[in-house]
Amino acid sequence: MTYLTGFHAMEEFVQSGSTKGATLIVAAAGPRIKKILELARKAGLSTRSATARELDTLAPDNRGAVIQLEEAPSSTELDLETWLRSPLPANALVIMLDHIEDPHNLGAILRSADVFAADLVIMPERRAAKETDTVARASAGAVAYVPVATVPNLARAVELLKEAGFWTYAADMGGQNLPVTELSGRVAVVMGGEGSGVSRLLKERCDGALSIPQFGHVDSLNVSVAAGVLMYELRRRLGPPARA
Amino acid sequence: MTYLTGFHAMEEFVQSGSTKGATLIVAAAGPRIKKILELARKAGLSTRSATARELDTLAPDNRGAVIQLEEAPSSTELDLETWLRSPLPANALVIMLDHIEDPHNLGAILRSADVFAADLVIMPERRAAKETDTVARASAGAVAYVPVATVPNLARAVELLKEAGFWTYAADMGGQNLPVTELSGRVAVVMGGEGSGVSRLLKERCDGALSIPQFGHVDSLNVSVAAGVLMYELRRRLGPPARA
Repeated sequence: MTYLTGFHAMEEFVQSGSTKGATLIVAAAGPRIKKILELARKAGLSTRSATARELDTLAPDNRGAVIQLEEAPSSTELDLETWLRSPLPANALVIMLDHIEDPHNLGAILRSADVFAADLVIMPERRAAKETDTVARASAGAVAYVPVATVPNLARAVELLKEAGFWTYAADMGGQNLPVTELSGRVAVVMGGEGSGVSRLLKERCDGALSIPQFGHVDSLNVSVAAGVLMYELRRRLGPPARA
Repeated sequence: MTYLTGFHAMEEFVQSGSTKGATLIVAAAGPRIKKILELARKAGLSTRSATARELDTLAPDNRGAVIQLEEAPSSTELDLETWLRSPLPANALVIMLDHIEDPHNLGAILRSADVFAADLVIMPERRAAKETDTVARASAGAVAYVPVATVPNLARAVELLKEAGFWTYAADMGGQNLPVTELSGRVAVVMGGEGSGVSRLLKERCDGALSIPQFGHVDSLNVSVAAGVLMYELRRRLGPPARA
């Protein structure tokens, strides 16, 4: 079972038209929950009440109501080459994940990708952290909204992005200083796994590397924090998404 | 048992002079590991070898060597009022945590606090996520370096910070737009728990609120990602730490 806990995610889900097998479970009152209840009734979604304690057991990060899903929502899967041929925003933002295997980190990155309106997340086909319930929960439901392309070969994907006019960067501690690097147009950033970083081959294929300024004793940021900082900074510099 | 896995954290630890009960466990070669081995021999730290598989079991995020600690390193505990009377940098950065209970999030926030050179992290005395091994591991060893003050009352701490010339902000989705808000001098930011956010009383005590621009379907960023983005932006705007 998977649980949507964000008010926004629940509202979007109820209005999505495909609510089969889902149940709204309510343990508290409040204007936002009342609104979700009304939407759920209109959509014919089954609803039941629960105690706060029961809800906390099901979904510790609940805010008084959750939607229980039979299956983890799958992300919006896209084919990279088809996507690259579609009309893309002038400030398109793509995040590519190289060996991000921890499902909590993957979920948190998808959540940030939704918040900062990344236009696409690219992942390798054979990856350890599949779209499990853990990923869906760590993403706070964002997994249902973030466009994802899985590709057999990340190096080939970098070439395709470059051909489509993207500036491609590896996130790397030896890279150019993020806040003072000139950035514009369409940008794709490759995030590497914790410890290993972006693989050498992939780094060499990219146009450059970006580095978050670090002043500490430990080696680096948590990879989902680093991805969040990069996406924040890229959105700030490239401008808000066209769809916002 | 706790394991330091970052090369930097291991080097710092070996040179700290207080390595009692610690063991360096090595499963791989390489220039960085060779350097740590030499430092460990000089410091009289006990050393043993292990297989890569054994090391992966002990500390999945290892890079070929780890330092095993008998106890989780405790953070540098400071008294807030004493700290405020000491000479503080003109661009001091303080992070205050209101109900951050998940130890993974707390650890990741301490790791970011080290990386972005927060001058102090303030936490309430009665908190659910104590300095457990989980926090220490999630912090990648940063817990040993980040100055922490635990206080009985966060609202009182906000008052003390204001008296000491800090601008105090709550991280809040209804706040001023972070990238375009004027920021200077000494700044303290209060991070709230996921779901609940910063408590109303605390928000009212602060000079203002800061909001990270969000464009997504889900309600908000993971709290450790939000804290990382805020610390990145504040360091960018206030300038690098004097001690760097």
